[in-house]
Amino acid sequence: MSNKDFFVHPQGICESVTVGKGTKVWAFAHVLPGAVLGEECNICDNVFIENKVTIGNRVTIKCGVQVWDGVVLEDDVFVGPNATFTNDLFPRSKVHLGEYPQTRICSGASIGANATILPGITIGRNAMVGAGAVVTRSVPPNAVVVGNPARITGYADAGEKQKAATLFDLKKDEKPSVINTEVTGVTVHRLPLVTDLRGSLSVGEIGQHIPFDVQRYFLVFDVPSAETRGEHAHRECHQFLICVAGKVAVVADDGKHRQEVILDKPNLGIHLPPMTWGIQYKYSTDAVLLVLASHHYSSADYIRNYDEFLQLIKQQGT
Amino acid sequence: MSNKDFFVHPQGICESVTVGKGTKVWAFAHVLPGAVLGEECNICDNVFIENKVTIGNRVTIKCGVQVWDGVVLEDDVFVGPNATFTNDLFPRSKVHLGEYPQTRICSGASIGANATILPGITIGRNAMVGAGAVVTRSVPPNAVVVGNPARITGYADAGEKQKAATLFDLKKDEKPSVINTEVTGVTVHRLPLVTDLRGSLSVGEIGQHIPFDVQRYFLVFDVPSAETRGEHAHRECHQFLICVAGKVAVVADDGKHRQEVILDKPNLGIHLPPMTWGIQYKYSTDAVLLVLASHHYSSADYIRNYDEFLQLIKQQGT
Amino acid sequence: MSNKDFFVHPQGICESVTVGKGTKVWAFAHVLPGAVLGEECNICDNVFIENKVTIGNRVTIKCGVQVWDGVVLEDDVFVGPNATFTNDLFPRSKVHLGEYPQTRICSGASIGANATILPGITIGRNAMVGAGAVVTRSVPPNAVVVGNPARITGYADAGEKQKAATLFDLKKDEKPSVINTEVTGVTVHRLPLVTDLRGSLSVGEIGQHIPFDVQRYFLVFDVPSAETRGEHAHRECHQFLICVAGKVAVVADDGKHRQEVILDKPNLGIHLPPMTWGIQYKYSTDAVLLVLASHHYSSADYIRNYDEFLQLIKQQGT
Amino acid sequence: MSNKDFFVHPQGICESVTVGKGTKVWAFAHVLPGAVLGEECNICDNVFIENKVTIGNRVTIKCGVQVWDGVVLEDDVFVGPNATFTNDLFPRSKVHLGEYPQTRICSGASIGANATILPGITIGRNAMVGAGAVVTRSVPPNAVVVGNPARITGYADAGEKQKAATLFDLKKDEKPSVINTEVTGVTVHRLPLVTDLRGSLSVGEIGQHIPFDVQRYFLVFDVPSAETRGEHAHRECHQFLICVAGKVAVVADDGKHRQEVILDKPNLGIHLPPMTWGIQYKYSTDAVLLVLASHHYSSADYIRNYDEFLQLIKQQGT
Amino acid sequence: MSNKDFFVHPQGICESVTVGKGTKVWAFAHVLPGAVLGEECNICDNVFIENKVTIGNRVTIKCGVQVWDGVVLEDDVFVGPNATFTNDLFPRSKVHLGEYPQTRICSGASIGANATILPGITIGRNAMVGAGAVVTRSVPPNAVVVGNPARITGYADAGEKQKAATLFDLKKDEKPSVINTEVTGVTVHRLPLVTDLRGSLSVGEIGQHIPFDVQRYFLVFDVPSAETRGEHAHRECHQFLICVAGKVAVVADDGKHRQEVILDKPNLGIHLPPMTWGIQYKYSTDAVLLVLASHHYSSADYIRNYDEFLQLIKQQGT
Amino acid sequence: MSNKDFFVHPQGICESVTVGKGTKVWAFAHVLPGAVLGEECNICDNVFIENKVTIGNRVTIKCGVQVWDGVVLEDDVFVGPNATFTNDLFPRSKVHLGEYPQTRICSGASIGANATILPGITIGRNAMVGAGAVVTRSVPPNAVVVGNPARITGYADAGEKQKAATLFDLKKDEKPSVINTEVTGVTVHRLPLVTDLRGSLSVGEIGQHIPFDVQRYFLVFDVPSAETRGEHAHRECHQFLICVAGKVAVVADDGKHRQEVILDKPNLGIHLPPMTWGIQYKYSTDAVLLVLASHHYSSADYIRNYDEFLQLIKQQGT
Repeated sequence: MSNKDFFVHPQGICESVTVGKGTKVWAFAHVLPGAVLGEECNICDNVFIENKVTIGNRVTIKCGVQVWDGVVLEDDVFVGPNATFTNDLFPRSKVHLGEYPQTRICSGASIGANATILPGITIGRNAMVGAGAVVTRSVPPNAVVVGNPARITGYADAGEKQKAATLFDLKKDEKPSVINTEVTGVTVHRLPLVTDLRGSLSVGEIGQHIPFDVQRYFLVFDVPSAETRGEHAHRECHQFLICVAGKVAVVADDGKHRQEVILDKPNLGIHLPPMTWGIQYKYSTDAVLLVLASHHYSSADYIRNYDEFLQLIKQQGT
Repeated sequence: MSNKDFFVHPQGICESVTVGKGTKVWAFAHVLPGAVLGEECNICDNVFIENKVTIGNRVTIKCGVQVWDGVVLEDDVFVGPNATFTNDLFPRSKVHLGEYPQTRICSGASIGANATILPGITIGRNAMVGAGAVVTRSVPPNAVVVGNPARITGYADAGEKQKAATLFDLKKDEKPSVINTEVTGVTVHRLPLVTDLRGSLSVGEIGQHIPFDVQRYFLVFDVPSAETRGEHAHRECHQFLICVAGKVAVVADDGKHRQEVILDKPNLGIHLPPMTWGIQYKYSTDAVLLVLASHHYSSADYIRNYDEFLQLIKQQGT
Repeated sequence: MSNKDFFVHPQGICESVTVGKGTKVWAFAHVLPGAVLGEECNICDNVFIENKVTIGNRVTIKCGVQVWDGVVLEDDVFVGPNATFTNDLFPRSKVHLGEYPQTRICSGASIGANATILPGITIGRNAMVGAGAVVTRSVPPNAVVVGNPARITGYADAGEKQKAATLFDLKKDEKPSVINTEVTGVTVHRLPLVTDLRGSLSVGEIGQHIPFDVQRYFLVFDVPSAETRGEHAHRECHQFLICVAGKVAVVADDGKHRQEVILDKPNLGIHLPPMTWGIQYKYSTDAVLLVLASHHYSSADYIRNYDEFLQLIKQQGT
Repeated sequence: MSNKDFFVHPQGICESVTVGKGTKVWAFAHVLPGAVLGEECNICDNVFIENKVTIGNRVTIKCGVQVWDGVVLEDDVFVGPNATFTNDLFPRSKVHLGEYPQTRICSGASIGANATILPGITIGRNAMVGAGAVVTRSVPPNAVVVGNPARITGYADAGEKQKAATLFDLKKDEKPSVINTEVTGVTVHRLPLVTDLRGSLSVGEIGQHIPFDVQRYFLVFDVPSAETRGEHAHRECHQFLICVAGKVAVVADDGKHRQEVILDKPNLGIHLPPMTWGIQYKYSTDAVLLVLASHHYSSADYIRNYDEFLQLIKQQGT
Repeated sequence: MSNKDFFVHPQGICESVTVGKGTKVWAFAHVLPGAVLGEECNICDNVFIENKVTIGNRVTIKCGVQVWDGVVLEDDVFVGPNATFTNDLFPRSKVHLGEYPQTRICSGASIGANATILPGITIGRNAMVGAGAVVTRSVPPNAVVVGNPARITGYADAGEKQKAATLFDLKKDEKPSVINTEVTGVTVHRLPLVTDLRGSLSVGEIGQHIPFDVQRYFLVFDVPSAETRGEHAHRECHQFLICVAGKVAVVADDGKHRQEVILDKPNLGIHLPPMTWGIQYKYSTDAVLLVLASHHYSSADYIRNYDEFLQLIKQQGT
Repeated sequence: MSNKDFFVHPQGICESVTVGKGTKVWAFAHVLPGAVLGEECNICDNVFIENKVTIGNRVTIKCGVQVWDGVVLEDDVFVGPNATFTNDLFPRSKVHLGEYPQTRICSGASIGANATILPGITIGRNAMVGAGAVVTRSVPPNAVVVGNPARITGYADAGEKQKAATLFDLKKDEKPSVINTEVTGVTVHRLPLVTDLRGSLSVGEIGQHIPFDVQRYFLVFDVPSAETRGEHAHRECHQFLICVAGKVAVVADDGKHRQEVILDKPNLGIHLPPMTWGIQYKYSTDAVLLVLASHHYSSADYIRNYDEFLQLIKQQGT
């Protein structure tokens, strides 16, 4: 063990030799021969790592975790103590699957202490699984999930040390106006409202209140409250979102800043210009979201992969 | 009484002489001297008519009705038996108002048997007050009202013998499509709908599904269920109405035909071209109506008087 | 007027001569020549009777009432003051129907003061229309209706001077048992109930709790609360009714006594033996009524006409 | 008819001679011999008055009304056109009651046009029955009732020409404080309120916030929304009312001024000192009213008759 | 260690010698001397097994699990990684129970990863505890449970590799008819339904629609939605189940096939013949289940143990 | 290792020397050099203890637990198997906090098996965290919490071996009366109730039904159902609690006995005399709690620390 670039505690067992420089394997931990580990990883006491496992660089695995065949941990992943992976949805003793479903934890994601991850799931880049959560389906990039079963409750910020996205705070007495957010080009709009005995009326004049010509509208409704929609950016299309009934949260993200806006009035809108990553979630059961768009539908205008979005943003030098 | 052009039953009393040709006053009826009656009226038994009263031509007043100071009955009005007018909102014995509020029953309207009409109200042209109704506020043209207090339940048709407006009947299995109504230029639109586990989405492409460029939208909501909105036509502006939450009834009227459409789905719209009289009523408490318009707001574009609308239609020779 | 068998007040007008013995026509009343009146009628002040009208014997018409062409009043009918009949559902001045819809008030029925009766309606034998009611559809025999629009609120008793059916009063602490009502052969049953942590269970052993062999069951549900069901008797079939959800009122009638029972618990039943007239009404919106029957379905077993039922009861000497 | 102090139209019939000075009986009206009429009354066309009827001074009876045996109209009563009285709750033709239930319309009350009054009812002093109302039970002094069945919607003011009681208007941003009303000694109290994440807390210190020692409290709940409670004054007892759940309207009346306060928050109270006439109504279905009282229960402390209350107020010289 | 039939990793500790042939104890695992282990077991890294423990044959215990005094694992049990057993409901440091409550995991059952099992519980044969579940009460045979606290969400199939029971799929346009299921003798019945303006009516003729004479009925209601009922078979009694309000799921099981039927209409029934294992669960809060039975109640007719049921089925040669 | 007062298993690693007498460190456990452990502790297999950790006397730590920097376990704490602590609310790999939030488990508390404790939380004296619970905020003394997220479901008894507080059981047919509980001086009161057609009324005469002069009242409302209120004792003030709407649970504690009472009727009260520790929780969403108090508000009268309360009780020699 003397000429290896990585450290194994005298009471740890590391049967693999494909282990990166600076990685440490601590007491009572056990790495099987087929496992591949990156550099600068920290494998704590009582961790067990099977053979068909790939682990990136700078990964931390706290005590009491097992990494089973079929699990991939990308770079910079954090796995909290006693967090538990699985690789069989309906396990029975002595019944083995021919091939195990792959579970992928993407770069920078964290798995909270004592969380449970069901098999075949992808945890997106920078996502945060809360302590004790039981994750039963894939988690989008940056999302924060908690509970049993786990549900999205927020989106992590884009800063160095990840925090929950800041919530846009609309002052109560704001007049009809356009208000800047922290996200490039994204504005929140208080639209005119007239209320009398016959009811209420909110209006938007194209060109005056809505900052682009409208070529298309769509309505989103009947969304189960646990669902997330959007999760994409547009290359050229502007969008203007108004929640005309119920309530919905919109996360806008320019690759650097991320901010969450609650839409809960028919005279409150948000403008998402092109090259803005948008997410809608926390739909109330009666929510109806009206979207006005500057272009006719074109599938080529959609960017559906967050990594691709980040790269395009970088190319644009913004 | 011999040389008069009108008839008074031997046991009737007619103290007025300004009574039109062919009018009949029957037994136990009593017309005070100041009343003015038109031609071909029928004043039945036990009717009482005060002095400051003006009655048009071809008016029928059935038994047991009193017409008090301040009441005007235009041409072709029908007043059912025991229907009761009033001219003091808060009557006390021996307390008299200096001036009585005017109650006007417009041309062609009918007051049902035993109905009660509160003071200061206008019953619009061709409106129909149901038997036993207690009318506490003005009734728009063509509206049918019933109950205590009276509420609008429908709109009379534009035909000779007035009937309720026909209800537009949308077949259940209709595909996305444009469907003609009986009203000139008015079309009902089934818009595309996509439903999956994440919820539903309805879309309208401008120019393809929406037959005009959109310069303005407005949202109507929080309308008390007893209220009626709209009740006007536009000179140049097109409108496209979608009820994105709840339910609302839209009456479209081209001056000749009138038809009622129930909007109750986010993918169901109605196009009201210029010179269409439109009414919205029967709002469910959660209704949100989205209106897309072809022009920016202009008060000069509105026609708010139904008689003026009818005249303009006639001038246009349509 | 001296040799007539009927009386006309000096200031009344009776143009008809087909008037029965003992009938009286009072001041300011007016009977047109074609009307047919029975014996011992009382036509009060300010009543107006048209030509195509038939009135039975012992009919009372209080002041301020008009009886229009098409109205039939059978024997022993009472019409309260200012009660108002109609004969055109959609009246317009100078527009006359070729034939008027017939309105029939059956023997022994009463129309309350200032009530309004829409055209084409039948008010059943011994029914009672409450003061101020606006009757928009036909009323079954013995029913009591009130309100605008009028709804059934009870059933008149079978005694000489008609009163509302007595309500069966179930003591709160009644043990599982069979309890007699005032109606021949009709019993109310408290059935066993077992409740534990897992919920509640009610049981009925055939032969022990249910007093006949069950050949048929049916379930009645989704009944609008304003509706009445049943309204018939069986010749041979026994029925046992349990309201397993919600609440319903059952009226049982043996031709002499009539009693109303509220069913509102899954362990409360009522046994209706053959030759019992049964009615169910006042359904709560969530009501589900379970009926156990002693015979298979046979349309010949149903007696649907109350007069026929009364006659059969009389023939049986019961 | 020449030497009488009252006027009868040539085509009216007045068989009674106990008619007061200045009273007028108009055409087609008919007064039976036993009726007793006061001075300065106005009996309009087509009115019919039976024998066992007593009518006070300055009473107005508009056209088409009948006043039946058993009806008493006190001084200054107004009866609108076609308003209809009754004297048999369950009328059947040729069935006569031995004695008719008395219907009493107290001094200064008004019966709206075409209203229906069921038998045996008292309409309290200065009360106002709305046009078209169907009154099925007694109406308290000063109350305004409308609808079918009639329900209290407000209280008439104590001024000359009766208007609805003014509604006490609580400013939104009022601090914890004591606010005077227009009614002598009656104060509205905003009580301290503390709200934090754990919920809300409202507090009232006796002697500090509650201006008397508390000897008794009671809770009023499960009140059907159509009910009125209170309707009495106390001789010595103070009361402090707080609606701790739901909503209730309280009318306070010192005999000169009358004001209505909406209680709808657990930290909003009203102090009713002795010799204040108090009424509670418009209960929401979930309303729970807490009353703190300064004395133990004593039936002698209650004044339940409004006339007696007015007299006591006068004696006290207040 | 050389002459043992079982394997212990050099860094594992096995102090017991009552270990079956072929069993393997891996690194950092620790088996105390009193434990009894069967053949072909797999005891993974970091597992800890106390003294008063009995483990059957072919049992798999994944990493990070402890098996405490009082826990019994029958043959073929699977225990997922970090799954946690307990043996004291209210543990305090240094306070020891005289005797530990027994926790029994029956043959073939699986405990999901990171699940928590409270003390004194039995997990039935072939049951499946989901990953992350917190099991607070016993789980019936074949049931699938998930969540915190764990609730039944389905039933495992009877096949080799256990899957969820197939859901019976009722076609929408099925006519009144009898439809076979995959379970021997069990039929689903669409019963006649008549719907008109007065409501709906469903009927079942005994002998025609209900395939046995009815000697008993019972109603099940007020069941908390998390509860399971039934869980037994009858030796001779037929049952016919109809959910007359709300919704309930019925699982029928003949020992070979298992199928779940959703009852959600008053005209939808299921016939469970004798020797059918029946379960009802997923009650809606308003569910009322009507059961018709062919026999009077007899406790001897019930088979309440699933193993006994399976044996009886085998004896009958079916 | 021979001359140490504590035991370390040959395959355990204990790098710390500040370990109390009688403490045992078992196989595969690992204690880092900076950790401080008290006497008579039990550190089971596979436990890992970091450096900045302080552990009291008689603490039990079951298998699979890690105790991280920043965690303090006071005397007599029990930590169940696989229970998981945390010290970073938003962990990312290779990102370390300058200082870790302190997590404190107070004397006598127990952490159930597989529970998860979020960072920075205090678990109060004698509290009980249920197996599998995910604790997201601090837990008061004696409270029992379960679920994900964890909520209070009861309070541990004051006896030696801690059990849930006994629930006070109110008989259904109890007459208006005062009933003793097991807690010194605490009484439950059934108050008079009068119900008639106008609703229900409950009354309490001060001095008769309420056993002290009332100097203050307060109302508690809008409490989220997961919240706990109260959690203090008074030195001199009496309190009388009535839940006038909805439902609430009250725990009364005299330092020796603890009992829970459900208040759910407006005529049901509980008297808490001075030196009684009181807690209210399990509020229904519509609950309104009325509290009558014997003294004006004085912050000096409150004892808010349970340890202080216990000491004062002891000093008083009660």
